Amino acid sequence: MIIDGQHYQSIWYDEAQDKVYIIDQTCLPHRFEVLCLTTLEQASNAIVSMQVRGAPLIGVTAAYGMYLALREDPAQQLSASARLLSTRPTAVNLEWALGRVDAALTGLVEAERAAAALKLARQMEAEDIATCAAIGTAGVAILREIWQQKADKDAPLNLLTHCNAGALAVVDWGTALAVVYKAAAAGIPLHVWVDETRPRNQGASLTCWELGKQGIAHTLIVDNAGGHLMQQGRVDVCIVGSDRTTINGDVYNKIGTYLKALAADDNDIPFYVALPVSSIDFSVTTTATSVPIEERGAHEVSHLQGIDASGVLTTVRVAPADAAISNYGFDVTPARLVTGLITERGVIAASEAGIASLKKGE
Amino acid sequence: MIIDGQHYQSIWYDEAQDKVYIIDQTCLPHRFEVLCLTTLEQASNAIVSMQVRGAPLIGVTAAYGMYLALREDPAQQLSASARLLSTRPTAVNLEWALGRVDAALTGLVEAERAAAALKLARQMEAEDIATCAAIGTAGVAILREIWQQKADKDAPLNLLTHCNAGALAVVDWGTALAVVYKAAAAGIPLHVWVDETRPRNQGASLTCWELGKQGIAHTLIVDNAGGHLMQQGRVDVCIVGSDRTTINGDVYNKIGTYLKALAADDNDIPFYVALPVSSIDFSVTTTATSVPIEERGAHEVSHLQGIDASGVLTTVRVAPADAAISNYGFDVTPARLVTGLITERGVIAASEAGIASLKKGE
Repeated sequence: MIIDGQHYQSIWYDEAQDKVYIIDQTCLPHRFEVLCLTTLEQASNAIVSMQVRGAPLIGVTAAYGMYLALREDPAQQLSASARLLSTRPTAVNLEWALGRVDAALTGLVEAERAAAALKLARQMEAEDIATCAAIGTAGVAILREIWQQKADKDAPLNLLTHCNAGALAVVDWGTALAVVYKAAAAGIPLHVWVDETRPRNQGASLTCWELGKQGIAHTLIVDNAGGHLMQQGRVDVCIVGSDRTTINGDVYNKIGTYLKALAADDNDIPFYVALPVSSIDFSVTTTATSVPIEERGAHEVSHLQGIDASGVLTTVRVAPADAAISNYGFDVTPARLVTGLITERGVIAASEAGIASLKKGE
Repeated sequence: MIIDGQHYQSIWYDEAQDKVYIIDQTCLPHRFEVLCLTTLEQASNAIVSMQVRGAPLIGVTAAYGMYLALREDPAQQLSASARLLSTRPTAVNLEWALGRVDAALTGLVEAERAAAALKLARQMEAEDIATCAAIGTAGVAILREIWQQKADKDAPLNLLTHCNAGALAVVDWGTALAVVYKAAAAGIPLHVWVDETRPRNQGASLTCWELGKQGIAHTLIVDNAGGHLMQQGRVDVCIVGSDRTTINGDVYNKIGTYLKALAADDNDIPFYVALPVSSIDFSVTTTATSVPIEERGAHEVSHLQGIDASGVLTTVRVAPADAAISNYGFDVTPARLVTGLITERGVIAASEAGIASLKKGE
């Protein structure tokens, strides 16, 4: 992504300095800060404190964390892997990334381990970029067709997105936003409605920020507003990301996605999900109730961070002190509400047949 | 409503002291403060600053404001009425209340005006209480039936509500929450899911607070969560209020209501709207696009008020400083998604026939 005229990734390795850098996402949108990770502990803390978030980005960060750990002491392979795995125990991607590192180190003597971990981390970084770029490219034709069907040829294509499925959730490009960036680059005029995405407000704080830096026209709305905008004909297409897609095409994504999919369906607006094939869970064949939904802390709902009148990052409590709070992180959008899945291997139907078509090419 | 063992209304007249009191809603849920209104200016400011809000409550406050103005100077009837009307220019109820006061004062000499305004204000206060209590009573049978149909007889009835359609929006009881209070008093065990209701968070700050004071079990959720809870079978019924209901049964209510109605429909959950007959707009016969939807300031979305770590009420900005923001106040829930309208004159269908049945009894 381009930030103030310079190309950045959410994480990158500087070969000349032999250093790993990240964008500190806890400071966004209020401050842009780059952090250098030099130790296992710093890499672990970056994941725990959500300086990096988004499953693909967590995975790549963990791989670099293994490199940093083995550079310190190649004998600490097992303890380092356990430390990184403990940072976000529910993130499937973390286990997958650490498993890949462990496999790559099998049989290596201690002196070879750091270099091998670095090589794999850089490979995973490159793979993630290539995958996201391909997702973006795969979605351009869809947006072009919807745009060309608009009655008003001078109006931009109005797209609605939820949460942050952008460059900040991965290494670069994003998933849903990769489609936006590639479409904009292909000359399709775009305007994005950005759900603020309570409780953590990743839409307001991350998606608005990165769209702004890329020069993509956008408008921030509360999560309650999308249905009204769709009724009024002001949304042409929805694109969201996915944390996990089941074999029948149900989409686990940030809480609230289902409500927007219902509104899109009620107003005959196409609803697409952009995702890497790696996030399809080929082990889950059943519907909504089969995967447990993470319940997160009450503090995310009761408290909010922002900039106060004197420019200081401040946390305030917005709910009554004694309120009982429930905070589910994800919901399930049934496949019947999903127009299509945009993957790095093309656009497929959100159905068993669509997903099975991916396996054939394996 | 009962607050810490004492009965309160959102506004009341103390005859012994000849004083008008309100609950200052801008301090809730963090502080409970009662204000005495003694002048026209204080009454006007109470409406402007949203120390009182909710259409019925604004109307009664304006009537008392006329009393305070005429007590000061009975010659300022016209200017006082104009001042109060200017406080919230879009509130239909304000114009209706001031019209009633003006009509009641017609032909009176100056010396009689204050007493006549006071008499009408007290009458409007009493009417509002009686209407809301009757709405509550009308809804009890519905909740009892749904509760009795639950498979688990030990589980409470799980009800979901949006925004604040409670005692704080009216003089006492509320509309949607009147049904809750009357049902609880009738022995139906209840638990309420409270949408926080961005952007102004009336659910988090007002509904949670008043339910807590009445001892009604409740859980605060973000606006994104209701669909997931419905999919999981954890919502038995939805009840919301209405700002305006059209002659065909479409419901204008706080933004986000439509999304919850879609989710209720998708999960076969009854979706009721509780409202006074006075809020039915018998002049509007058409659908969604016929009534303009108020667009409010960006500040409500970009900034939030809460209590900081040292207990001070603080406003913070949560969005990027330069973000374009859209902030529609209401949306339209089509009649097809509404199971029924709970009014002070009974439960009717959300349809032309249902609403026409009210007119017959006029």
